[in-house]
Amino acid sequence: MLRRILITISYDGALFCGWQRQKDETIRTVQLCFEKGCEELFKQPVECTGASRTDKGVHSFGQRATIYVDTTIPSKRLPIALNCFLPDDIAVIAAEDVGEDFHPRYSAKKKTYEYKILNDTYRNPVLRNYSEFIYEKLDIIKMQEAAYSFLGTHDFKAFCATGSSVKTSVRTIFDISVYKSDKFIIMNITGDGFLYNMIRIIAGTLIYVGLGKIDSKSIPDIINSKNRQCAGKTAGAQGLTLLNIEY
Amino acid sequence: MLRRILITISYDGALFCGWQRQKDETIRTVQLCFEKGCEELFKQPVECTGASRTDKGVHSFGQRATIYVDTTIPSKRLPIALNCFLPDDIAVIAAEDVGEDFHPRYSAKKKTYEYKILNDTYRNPVLRNYSEFIYEKLDIIKMQEAAYSFLGTHDFKAFCATGSSVKTSVRTIFDISVYKSDKFIIMNITGDGFLYNMIRIIAGTLIYVGLGKIDSKSIPDIINSKNRQCAGKTAGAQGLTLLNIEY
Repeated sequence: MLRRILITISYDGALFCGWQRQKDETIRTVQLCFEKGCEELFKQPVECTGASRTDKGVHSFGQRATIYVDTTIPSKRLPIALNCFLPDDIAVIAAEDVGEDFHPRYSAKKKTYEYKILNDTYRNPVLRNYSEFIYEKLDIIKMQEAAYSFLGTHDFKAFCATGSSVKTSVRTIFDISVYKSDKFIIMNITGDGFLYNMIRIIAGTLIYVGLGKIDSKSIPDIINSKNRQCAGKTAGAQGLTLLNIEY
Repeated sequence: MLRRILITISYDGALFCGWQRQKDETIRTVQLCFEKGCEELFKQPVECTGASRTDKGVHSFGQRATIYVDTTIPSKRLPIALNCFLPDDIAVIAAEDVGEDFHPRYSAKKKTYEYKILNDTYRNPVLRNYSEFIYEKLDIIKMQEAAYSFLGTHDFKAFCATGSSVKTSVRTIFDISVYKSDKFIIMNITGDGFLYNMIRIIAGTLIYVGLGKIDSKSIPDIINSKNRQCAGKTAGAQGLTLLNIEY
């Protein structure tokens, strides 16, 4: 029975060259490993469509992808079955049947990411692949103040990596929060979608605000400038995790 | 000025073949990398003496080692100076001058380790190198009950890897606790010292208790048996972290 199945995938981005499969199959990507695992389980060619093209080094607890396969395995049993054919740094954590018209990217309503900053005196070896390390003390109050200005619908051209070609750089941020947890400063951000490197540039800008290099009140001006040069630098990929996608 | 300096070292054990330097220098150990870093900074041969010979895969937030060097760098400045010459997965987090008679192993009064179990439905890629994954539900109450029996001074021969040669297998456990934190079950254990693989065998035994394979009341009998076969299996190295050493 041919079914369209929506899969939730968790992975450690450290050893992957991002999500998207490359023509050169010696480049280890999540999609490549996932499709190969599917092919081993289902004994048929499987192409998957991912919701989010996460970069090299970016992690996921809630990436989504659809596969279109002929199988009778109940969706409830699929995570365990698929995990047998996936490397240690990828795990399927949920699966459900969806309709023919469902598309993991176009049907997505909200995406939530987390950006983790380790703000401590010394770097932490265990956390090196899972956080951005900043040893200078960050002013979290100023970061929270600045974060607030990202809320709503804006043209985020100033927060998009140069060279990216998209129809529109208007996006809506539904929710953004910055909070402290132990030695971390964590940013959670929910939007209808994000431009290329947008979250990492927002994180980098908030770090500059926390360091006093950018004024916490200047975010609206930076947005209005539509000039990438006005925003902070792109924070490291290793601090970023795709948490959840809502449909 | 020749000084004896006590260094606190944090590391991610995942990519190391344990602490101890091997004759074959192509084997990547923490001690090897640390000594090489010291030699680069101090421009002199440096030998260090570690407090604990952690195994391959075991992590540390609080390993201690002494070095004997001719330097005028204030101990307060040493962590930052040394970290410039260490790989990403090792960091020095403290340094202090100690007396001639100080020995990082013999002077140690208490060592504290943490053992982390991920008790969840599916494995977690990001945590694969930092926890032991158990998908069957563990009974934490029984594990806590069993843990209590390890307290005090006992001959821990049943909890020592076979083939190990030590003068005495009597050790004292000052403190042991088992608690839940999110999807983790964490064991904290403090003792005057530990036999080879002792903590991992205690953790493995507690996991068997949590799974109902070993009765929570049978720990005294297992200790008295002095027979390794009576205890549970050795839990994975990746769940273990050396937290602290007290002098």
